[in-house]
Amino acid sequence: MSEIQIPVAGVQMDVVLGDVDANVARFLKALEDPRVAKARLVVFPECATTGYCFDSKEEAMAVAQPVPGPVTEKLLKVAQERDQHLAFGTLERDGDDLYNSCVLLGPTGIVGVYRKIHMPFLGVDRFATPGKEQLAVFDVGPMRVGMHICYDGSFPEVPRTLALLGADLVILPTNWPPGADTFAEYLPNARALENHIYYMSVNRIGEERGFRFIGHSKFCLPTGRSPSSGSLTEEDIVSGTVQPHIVRNKRLVRVPGKHLIDRMADRRPAFYGELCKEHHLERDESDRP
Amino acid sequence: MSEIQIPVAGVQMDVVLGDVDANVARFLKALEDPRVAKARLVVFPECATTGYCFDSKEEAMAVAQPVPGPVTEKLLKVAQERDQHLAFGTLERDGDDLYNSCVLLGPTGIVGVYRKIHMPFLGVDRFATPGKEQLAVFDVGPMRVGMHICYDGSFPEVPRTLALLGADLVILPTNWPPGADTFAEYLPNARALENHIYYMSVNRIGEERGFRFIGHSKFCLPTGRSPSSGSLTEEDIVSGTVQPHIVRNKRLVRVPGKHLIDRMADRRPAFYGELCKEHHLERDESDRP
Repeated sequence: MSEIQIPVAGVQMDVVLGDVDANVARFLKALEDPRVAKARLVVFPECATTGYCFDSKEEAMAVAQPVPGPVTEKLLKVAQERDQHLAFGTLERDGDDLYNSCVLLGPTGIVGVYRKIHMPFLGVDRFATPGKEQLAVFDVGPMRVGMHICYDGSFPEVPRTLALLGADLVILPTNWPPGADTFAEYLPNARALENHIYYMSVNRIGEERGFRFIGHSKFCLPTGRSPSSGSLTEEDIVSGTVQPHIVRNKRLVRVPGKHLIDRMADRRPAFYGELCKEHHLERDESDRP
Repeated sequence: MSEIQIPVAGVQMDVVLGDVDANVARFLKALEDPRVAKARLVVFPECATTGYCFDSKEEAMAVAQPVPGPVTEKLLKVAQERDQHLAFGTLERDGDDLYNSCVLLGPTGIVGVYRKIHMPFLGVDRFATPGKEQLAVFDVGPMRVGMHICYDGSFPEVPRTLALLGADLVILPTNWPPGADTFAEYLPNARALENHIYYMSVNRIGEERGFRFIGHSKFCLPTGRSPSSGSLTEEDIVSGTVQPHIVRNKRLVRVPGKHLIDRMADRRPAFYGELCKEHHLERDESDRP
């Protein structure tokens, strides 16, 4: 594979609870930033069109939209005009179900939709339906992109599965609160390093109904380093370049022409897959608030 | 479970290649440090009795010992005299096989032996036989300890499996070279956080045959924070306190009496176990040095 370089950016932004038009206007403003304007893929936070801290399913359903729907139609036009791909967190309405989703769309249409599968007992996730589809990766030009959302990233199995499916870049739109500060500090880098992929966490800032968000978005390289990270309090941009040929060579070389480790082939699933697969505890909701 | 507090320590030390007596003498000296003397469990680096950069299997086999054998006999006496548990990396000889092992022993005898299962094409691992036993956890008083070694820690499935088996503390005796600097910086914290366990990485310092080791050992809390970390160049001690009751409550509470997330029960293996288990690539050794 030739040495293609693909600029990407993440928009760390504030979000207005329940005001989809105001949030989409922020998207458009952010796209004017030169680092964002040149990106092939632009990533926005979890629930970036809607906000997160809804008090009831009814309140959230009133703001949620079907996919495709008005918001995706509007952003599809933007993607076409600018020849860019956009990935954004949104609340998706599907019949009586409410999903915490990430939509990936580009000049030719909707590329993929991911519905969050790991649900903390927080904010709108208290009322959302967990996703039912298996994990998948999607093409953005020559780059393969995997999506997961916020709490999903706590489970190393998710980025691992996306990497095994061939992801070059895994994105994590998120709404990290203050208690997730060590997540923001360590986990994006760990996910990039252990899977030898690019990883971009895009958090929001601001506050909703007393619930604060801590920024600290990151763009991480397959080495585990994070050359671009966001403010802990202000709107900000993270950006970088994805080089798929680097990701797709899991054989890390220290001797010319020779590999010393291989992040995927050196796995030994016989020693952990069975247990990791079978050890499924039923969720006990008895002491939920 | 009552709120037991168990002091533990890691000895970040230099190692003399091939000189078992000199290395065991260093163990004994380190045990005089007050932070080490009071520890219920003391952890030493990978290959701490032997060194790592052997040039041939024959050279390594000449230094390796059976378990039990002279080194474990000597250290068993130390453990009995001091009423402590010791865990140390060592080269284990078993017939014609050479294993890169971690031995855990205490006042009553050998508690457990772990043989490294993930082998980089580096140092003595080029000649060692990968471990064949399933992962396990071992009791050290009221604390359950899981062991893995160096490159094993790159695979999130290993600490995950140990956590699923009930580990309170997972230890990583290691021999990190300079290229593992991002590993040292991010992965111990990630392992602790994502599994809600204590995690202790114990690296060595010094140099063998031009191969340098980078220290940066860490003791990490289930929050992902690392209150104790070692020098990047000098001998040092990391230490802390393990509280099993904290680890065993995977339900993280933000509202009195209520849990918002559960690090284990919130896993959704149906979405990743199958793939993680089945996706086993055969190792291709064709371009090994």
